Amino acid sequence: MRSDARPIGFLDSGVGGLTVIKEFVRQLPNESYLFIGDQARMPYGPRPAEQVQQFAWQLTQFLLQFDVKMVVFACNTATAEALPLIRKLVDIPIVGVIPPGVRAAIRATRNGHIGVIGTVGTIRSHAYDGAIQAQAPEIEVSTLAAPKFVPVVESNQYHSPVAKKIVAETLQQLPDKDIDTLVLGCTHYPLLRPLIQNYMGKHVTLIDSGAETVSEISALLDYFDIRNLEHGPQSAPKLFTTGSPKMFGEIAEDWLRMTDLPVTKVNVTDLPAANGKEMVS
Amino acid sequence: MRSDARPIGFLDSGVGGLTVIKEFVRQLPNESYLFIGDQARMPYGPRPAEQVQQFAWQLTQFLLQFDVKMVVFACNTATAEALPLIRKLVDIPIVGVIPPGVRAAIRATRNGHIGVIGTVGTIRSHAYDGAIQAQAPEIEVSTLAAPKFVPVVESNQYHSPVAKKIVAETLQQLPDKDIDTLVLGCTHYPLLRPLIQNYMGKHVTLIDSGAETVSEISALLDYFDIRNLEHGPQSAPKLFTTGSPKMFGEIAEDWLRMTDLPVTKVNVTDLPAANGKEMVS
Repeated sequence: MRSDARPIGFLDSGVGGLTVIKEFVRQLPNESYLFIGDQARMPYGPRPAEQVQQFAWQLTQFLLQFDVKMVVFACNTATAEALPLIRKLVDIPIVGVIPPGVRAAIRATRNGHIGVIGTVGTIRSHAYDGAIQAQAPEIEVSTLAAPKFVPVVESNQYHSPVAKKIVAETLQQLPDKDIDTLVLGCTHYPLLRPLIQNYMGKHVTLIDSGAETVSEISALLDYFDIRNLEHGPQSAPKLFTTGSPKMFGEIAEDWLRMTDLPVTKVNVTDLPAANGKEMVS
Repeated sequence: MRSDARPIGFLDSGVGGLTVIKEFVRQLPNESYLFIGDQARMPYGPRPAEQVQQFAWQLTQFLLQFDVKMVVFACNTATAEALPLIRKLVDIPIVGVIPPGVRAAIRATRNGHIGVIGTVGTIRSHAYDGAIQAQAPEIEVSTLAAPKFVPVVESNQYHSPVAKKIVAETLQQLPDKDIDTLVLGCTHYPLLRPLIQNYMGKHVTLIDSGAETVSEISALLDYFDIRNLEHGPQSAPKLFTTGSPKMFGEIAEDWLRMTDLPVTKVNVTDLPAANGKEMVS
């Protein structure tokens, strides 16, 4: 075993990926991390796939500047629409949030009825239902786009009565009333978890694909022998946003229960260019 | 996603690796597998590291003849002493049982006292205690070699009063009486699980590193995009032993609760040679 102190880079369209960071810090306290949220261009969900690929590639290149040892797509939309392409372009491990969520959902269901909620882009990609049915054809999967969830989180209203109303109005559209497992197929949704659990009832298991992803990150750190074996992170966390550092910091501090988190603004125009040439698959 | 119907190859010193197979068949019902147990030369535990490396390399080469897409070292001794070396020699993923067990034990302990039982070779290698303390220095780890466990399993006496006596006599030597988590650091030991759990008491969580390993296999199938997406295994299981197919088959059928498992004898002299040249690291 050798020790690799390099940080891990996380990207998301906004603050949602912080739900992955929360679990990452808990499970892997010796690892350092960087995070970039592309709030200026969120939400990614309704955008065309090509644009999501271009944005995710810009964020990946931004993270690579910091000598990261792994990049985590802490964003379901980017995982569904851009990860397979970008994995071919870099020589460090790229981890997405969807396969761990798929595995966890298949393990969790008892009656074989799984529901998936996600952004328009994630649902349109069929990344979850396609993978679940490929691995376990006997399982019935129903999906629902929940386009109002990301904006309510990003506007820091996820504790509000408005959020409760939006959650109820959205989830009542779930087509299969028999599901016993619901995949939170967007990293923003765990911030709404208490409201979602309350609406669904205790008998429904919520799958937080972000938490599951950290188990995969841990496995890959061992597999590639790139774990940090020193005690504690060897560099302080760095948080970046293309939007407002103030609002990003408020949500980050509330969610991670940490204070004085340094948040740096990065202008979209200062991100590495993605001219599309290298993106041709 | 593409579909990869190639089988996965498992190796062990004997029948212990069947405890990994049991979980593998449950969690990954669409995957095909081969298994070779080196019963003629078991137990591996007391052997010098160089010999374990040579034997494990022979078994790996045997499995590679069947166009496997992944090799699983379903043997703690081989994982501890040979896997890092052999991983450098082949270009398909090689998975071992120790890192998943380490991660599961760290997750499971509540009071920070973990015990590890294993073969002489595994305990001597410090693979478990070294990795646990590297990742979580605050945890106290105590280890104990249990050299009598493998022979009692391999002789198909794991349900017997003799087994109960050996389990009690061994576990009373555990140096730390406060452990709340005990790693079964040998794939043979889950066959003794009821006896071990009974001796330790319900408050002690037993970690079956084999079961944990299947989660890692599943993650790597996704990571390398080599999952079989067809329904059901695309080839029948093949079981090989260098020892007695009859006894191997009896234990396999009892443990896997399957009948008519085909077990083929392979002579040690017919295994691919490992002349040591390519083994120089």
